[in-house]
Amino acid sequence: MTDESLKVGIVTISDRASKGEYEDKSGPAILDWLSQALVSEWKSNVKVIPDEQDQIEAELKALVDDERCHLVLTTGGTGPAKRDVTPEATLAIADKVMDGFGERMRSISLKYVPTAILSRQLGVIRKNCLIINLPGQPKAIKETLDELFEAIPYCIDLIDGPYIETNESIVKAFRPKSAIRKK
Amino acid sequence: MTDESLKVGIVTISDRASKGEYEDKSGPAILDWLSQALVSEWKSNVKVIPDEQDQIEAELKALVDDERCHLVLTTGGTGPAKRDVTPEATLAIADKVMDGFGERMRSISLKYVPTAILSRQLGVIRKNCLIINLPGQPKAIKETLDELFEAIPYCIDLIDGPYIETNESIVKAFRPKSAIRKK
Amino acid sequence: MTDESLKVGIVTISDRASKGEYEDKSGPAILDWLSQALVSEWKSNVKVIPDEQDQIEAELKALVDDERCHLVLTTGGTGPAKRDVTPEATLAIADKVMDGFGERMRSISLKYVPTAILSRQLGVIRKNCLIINLPGQPKAIKETLDELFEAIPYCIDLIDGPYIETNESIVKAFRPKSAIRKK
Repeated sequence: MTDESLKVGIVTISDRASKGEYEDKSGPAILDWLSQALVSEWKSNVKVIPDEQDQIEAELKALVDDERCHLVLTTGGTGPAKRDVTPEATLAIADKVMDGFGERMRSISLKYVPTAILSRQLGVIRKNCLIINLPGQPKAIKETLDELFEAIPYCIDLIDGPYIETNESIVKAFRPKSAIRKK
Repeated sequence: MTDESLKVGIVTISDRASKGEYEDKSGPAILDWLSQALVSEWKSNVKVIPDEQDQIEAELKALVDDERCHLVLTTGGTGPAKRDVTPEATLAIADKVMDGFGERMRSISLKYVPTAILSRQLGVIRKNCLIINLPGQPKAIKETLDELFEAIPYCIDLIDGPYIETNESIVKAFRPKSAIRKK
Repeated sequence: MTDESLKVGIVTISDRASKGEYEDKSGPAILDWLSQALVSEWKSNVKVIPDEQDQIEAELKALVDDERCHLVLTTGGTGPAKRDVTPEATLAIADKVMDGFGERMRSISLKYVPTAILSRQLGVIRKNCLIINLPGQPKAIKETLDELFEAIPYCIDLIDGPYIETNESIVKAFRPKSAIRKK
């Protein structure tokens, strides 16, 4: 475990948002959620890029390898359409794939819409960073983080990242007893 | 989106059925289900082939690349046995894998039998076609389509296929409001 | 199907247990569960090895190819940490991946802890053997086998292994009617 404070990369992947044709509401929705949920110190690094596999891979690598992010959250580009290449880019730069994240995110979204199965969202590890493909819509981002995030602090512990503390009225981080740090 | 009518490929994969040793009931069960569920125009292309990976790959490619199917439904060959190679063939010709389809199909079948986890069913995209490995048994085909199909019309929309309308007493197609076409 | 009796390999994968720094409780928990659950004849082959991908691959191959195990159960090494390489080793020696096993195991464990999604447990087929990565903790091993095992005897049938009979007060093996052997 490290004493650094948490660094979070937030990447909106959208052709239209990256050209300014469309106001990005998804990146801000992630920032807003984290601002309410995290009580330990954290910094963010926010990007908006087009649906180009090479650019997505380069951005994810830069956030992990150069910026030393412990957590990277992407939004957009996970559907079945031709321009949806976020999972391909994420997989290409992954050290380990965490199948449970994709399964869990689809299962959360399935409570709201049957088309949740069309999402190819992944969770992967690269070096000491957890990268997660969140849904594209602000509403679905919140629904996902509200439930998914309870498993994230312990995952960051296991890959030697900082100890994350949350606002339990938003989400309660789950850790086995032996991993809970006494204050 | 295209104005063509929906083309569906239906492929029974079975050594015995392809030799005529066994009457194929699974392909007809798919046709029957579609006949009741679809109200927009559609055409089908029906095949019965043995459990040979090369032949399955060639047939799937022909249905997508030459016959221009928008949806291909296979039945058979998804178990753990040596001759079960449908998922291997499907994966070999896929552009994108849709993990949510396999998860959802197993989760539907798990309500009926605990051995649902033995199925390696996939959903994939090749070009502008969605290919789905359905279960082998007519009963399980119906149980799966009754629930799974609600997400299929919107998936076909997203890969630029025709707008599918269903008989809502069988299955109600789910689309986000912005994707619903006014009559 | 074969008339041999069931051979089960049990592999604890742990740096500390393999050095004797730590008493292995997980391998014994698997043995104990099987002793209570199986009524047909069986033999076991028990190993404790470190979290080294090469050694895990070599051990799994030896248990399947040389020892002719029909079922291999591993415990340990499935998390996101750097030394967790059990899934990588399992995948490297697999003929077929059974996605339903990983999904089902995470879904069982999710009833107990939200961090179940951090596990990368796999089920795969190599030759005539089913290999399953179980959780690391004795409590989670029992919780998993209590539910998962009902699908295992029929899976072993389908890959030409021995007919397994269980103590129904522990777990009831599920088979389609046509696969149930009359006494």
